[in-house]
Amino acid sequence: MIDVAAWLTSLEQALAQNEPDQVADLFLETGLWRDFLAFDWTLATHEGRPAISAFAARRGAATSATDWTTEAASGASEGFIAFETAQGPGKGYVRLVEGKALSLFTMLDELKGHEFPLRKRRPTGLPDGETWSDRRERERAALDSSGQPYVLIVGAGQAGLALGATLRLLGVPHLLIDKHPRVGDQWRSRYKSLTLHDPVWYDHMPYLPFPDHWPVYTPKDKMGDWLELYATAMELDVWTRTELKSARPADTGWTATVLRNGQELELRPAHVVMAVGNAGFPRLPEFPGAETFQGQQYHSSAHPGGAGLAGKRVVVIGANNSAHDICADLVEHGAHPVMIQRSSTHIIRQSTMTDVMLKPLYSQEAVEAGLTTERADLISASVPIRLQEIGSRQAWAKIREAEAPFYSRLEQAGFKLDFAEDGAGIAGKYLRSGSGYYIDVGACEMIADGRIALRSGIEVNRIVPDGIELANGEHLPADLIIYATGFGAMEEWVARLIGDDVAARIGRCWGYGSGYRGDPGPWDGEMRNMWKPTAQDGLWFMGGNLAQARFYSRLLGLQLKARLEGLTGG
Amino acid sequence: MIDVAAWLTSLEQALAQNEPDQVADLFLETGLWRDFLAFDWTLATHEGRPAISAFAARRGAATSATDWTTEAASGASEGFIAFETAQGPGKGYVRLVEGKALSLFTMLDELKGHEFPLRKRRPTGLPDGETWSDRRERERAALDSSGQPYVLIVGAGQAGLALGATLRLLGVPHLLIDKHPRVGDQWRSRYKSLTLHDPVWYDHMPYLPFPDHWPVYTPKDKMGDWLELYATAMELDVWTRTELKSARPADTGWTATVLRNGQELELRPAHVVMAVGNAGFPRLPEFPGAETFQGQQYHSSAHPGGAGLAGKRVVVIGANNSAHDICADLVEHGAHPVMIQRSSTHIIRQSTMTDVMLKPLYSQEAVEAGLTTERADLISASVPIRLQEIGSRQAWAKIREAEAPFYSRLEQAGFKLDFAEDGAGIAGKYLRSGSGYYIDVGACEMIADGRIALRSGIEVNRIVPDGIELANGEHLPADLIIYATGFGAMEEWVARLIGDDVAARIGRCWGYGSGYRGDPGPWDGEMRNMWKPTAQDGLWFMGGNLAQARFYSRLLGLQLKARLEGLTGG
Repeated sequence: MIDVAAWLTSLEQALAQNEPDQVADLFLETGLWRDFLAFDWTLATHEGRPAISAFAARRGAATSATDWTTEAASGASEGFIAFETAQGPGKGYVRLVEGKALSLFTMLDELKGHEFPLRKRRPTGLPDGETWSDRRERERAALDSSGQPYVLIVGAGQAGLALGATLRLLGVPHLLIDKHPRVGDQWRSRYKSLTLHDPVWYDHMPYLPFPDHWPVYTPKDKMGDWLELYATAMELDVWTRTELKSARPADTGWTATVLRNGQELELRPAHVVMAVGNAGFPRLPEFPGAETFQGQQYHSSAHPGGAGLAGKRVVVIGANNSAHDICADLVEHGAHPVMIQRSSTHIIRQSTMTDVMLKPLYSQEAVEAGLTTERADLISASVPIRLQEIGSRQAWAKIREAEAPFYSRLEQAGFKLDFAEDGAGIAGKYLRSGSGYYIDVGACEMIADGRIALRSGIEVNRIVPDGIELANGEHLPADLIIYATGFGAMEEWVARLIGDDVAARIGRCWGYGSGYRGDPGPWDGEMRNMWKPTAQDGLWFMGGNLAQARFYSRLLGLQLKARLEGLTGG
Repeated sequence: MIDVAAWLTSLEQALAQNEPDQVADLFLETGLWRDFLAFDWTLATHEGRPAISAFAARRGAATSATDWTTEAASGASEGFIAFETAQGPGKGYVRLVEGKALSLFTMLDELKGHEFPLRKRRPTGLPDGETWSDRRERERAALDSSGQPYVLIVGAGQAGLALGATLRLLGVPHLLIDKHPRVGDQWRSRYKSLTLHDPVWYDHMPYLPFPDHWPVYTPKDKMGDWLELYATAMELDVWTRTELKSARPADTGWTATVLRNGQELELRPAHVVMAVGNAGFPRLPEFPGAETFQGQQYHSSAHPGGAGLAGKRVVVIGANNSAHDICADLVEHGAHPVMIQRSSTHIIRQSTMTDVMLKPLYSQEAVEAGLTTERADLISASVPIRLQEIGSRQAWAKIREAEAPFYSRLEQAGFKLDFAEDGAGIAGKYLRSGSGYYIDVGACEMIADGRIALRSGIEVNRIVPDGIELANGEHLPADLIIYATGFGAMEEWVARLIGDDVAARIGRCWGYGSGYRGDPGPWDGEMRNMWKPTAQDGLWFMGGNLAQARFYSRLLGLQLKARLEGLTGG
């Protein structure tokens, strides 16, 4: 049987001889080659032999990848791989089925001559004509006056900070701007009992991992503090209390107008990275009679927390993450919430996420078995989205069975469940539309036992002065109505801040073209416009959860560094 | 040949049968048993068979240490060991020579039932009746009002913070006080070009190691920032702008008066830990005529840095670390320093420290060979001071030979060198008196090439209005005189803040009774009064470099936790 080492020898040969069809023939008929910057300056998956042959024809010989090696044992059908290209060292992972590749993942790891200054490459720290504090002072002063960053990062949450850290290490001048008074305020300003929904092993920021005493689920204020100290430890240049007002493509990049502490300033970065979160603007439904309501009503994003709401009757319209979180918060504060679930919701218990889905790669057990976060991330990325979908459906079939008592209790309380249209569960929901789910950290039990009242499968008819009226005529009295009705898409920021023309050219962000709800086709196979070049030169999108911020910040950082150094030939 | 495993079997048997002489007979005639809290609630080395027998008689059977295991390979004559006592898991290291122990190191690792909440034991972070931010708020408010810490730590430098972190993890209520406005100001306030003299691998704080991009030698402001963010990340309770005015033993601990933001407050901690650094008060020599000097004169500790001193003639009296650092700083700022070396100085080049002395245990190579900081620390601690002295003398004989060209260049410039009285070099100097040396980060080259002028082996006769006059009659004109004449001993703080009676009872701090200069005998074999019980109940001393702060904070933390829980039987 052909093992990984033998397969790599054939691949190296086929590439060297510039035989695209031979390359393709090393794959299964439906094989997949996912490449992140190693063979081409973008993130893409080439699916099936014809596409692989075309990719090999275009980039195979040109890349001159050599020195293919593997850590896989003799006879193994999958394992880590490494190789070298003219740009720098690459790494990846290959999975064989009967000697043919089901999937090949290749990724650029470093840029030759511009390696990450880590471990043996770390700086000495000794003064070199200039002390550390003088250098930092000079850098800050330069940005404050006429100095211009090469990269302007809009938003200093985890995504922006992770990218900033990569750019700092690679020596790419950057400026992060954020509207909040302090780094971390995005987290601090949320409701009190919030913690990260994913466990600590999955949530490390790049380069500065959480220490061993860190809680499994980071409380939101602690997360805010960590991001703030991360910015200090990584020497990031951040302007807080600063908002982007507009950005327009200019000759050599952008003209960006920012409002800093109330003062307008013009910046001329070569690149603008939108790192404003995965959502656009709050979406408010228009119900008849809303203007007649005598209590308070606001969007979930404006909810300050349940303090002071004891005894109040609150109608929460919506049944995804925000709605659940807010209802639980209301119960904890002695208020009486009614959740209005208009369509079905996907539920995954936090314990299932931690102990079933993430455990093999991101857990204390994985760490103690020697699996580093870097390798876990590589294994994760090595699975093309096409295969992720299949794996998710299989996993969820098992989870639904194992968790049947939990789900049937919820259904008995009237809750409308779904597991994504194709049964792919959370992965399908999260990657396709970023909505339609709740990671259960306790609200489900409150629904099951009635502490959170529920009306499901029903629309709101109208708002009346003292509450709401449902489609079946039921009248729900309310002192407060909270619209947990979600957010628009990320690209709304482009339309507002950059212009409708650019927004139209870019198209949608997020999703991969599955064709399922919230994620129209055609199939793309990678996340739309995320972490890779867009149709607008110099406009980029960071975003995603902490794990994505960690992994993709490095890839986007490499792309920006390559442009600064003129390595992309474009 | 008896290997480690066989030796441990014999030890376990001799201990179980309560046969102290059999225990002693497992050691060489001059064998050493260093025990840190595993067999007795102090840090002590028992030297030679009679002392070991006496220790085994007193604590051997009483400790009931069982389950002795080793990682050492079959046939190995040294290696890591582990065991269990009634108090908790112990670990250590043993070195055999022809089947007998040259040294045994035993150390308490955790307290059973009060384990460090790390890795698998980390908290969930989920709200448990109280959110994280509410808990932190409550803790701070309690300290601000009538709440009393169990442990008051005086000084929030690396030693105090490292201990505070241990106490936080072990659930021991603590309060750190520091006179500076911000945590880290001890470092920020020093001269501009200062960096840590030891490399990053040796300088990790406990629980939150420096990340992989951290410079080899941390610049002082970056160190200040790191300590400040460390206090946040470790959730330490610190009052800045707060000074201890006095502390008096009281019924159940201490009555301590502190000045916080100008307001006097009384605290009643059970324990007071002095973590004010390794030095006492600035030592100013009294030279005749000092009052006639028309320029500025001050102690090295008051030196603000060389900015503004270009062209000035500066006499620096002293030739240890501060004198060298200040002279180098003056040269960099265009001033003209003359160093007055009255007696000889030990010099170790920073590169020798990093690349020769520390490399086997603390280096990128060691990390990549799988040696964790925790294990490196254990190996370091496993060498009793008696053996350290022998090892240092051997090492320095080699270093002097290897570095002969460097040292002879210095001597040609007139510099008076020494390598400690017995040739033990830096270790002898540092552990015995904490003074008499310079870790060369560049000043030596300036002395060799004359940028720093030198007068050596000579005393100051008197100060004159425009400079100083040396014993040989030479007149040195000066605009500024800096007295780099060192500091008093740590125990000066006890006399000033607690009282002469307690200071007399405690005796000297630091040193181990070598009998050499600055460290009078009799031999003790461990550092006097450091990190262990003193003659004054509830009074403790933290101190030392970053590596010592890291290692001993855990041991002192365990002792304080054991007292809080009533485990020490005292």
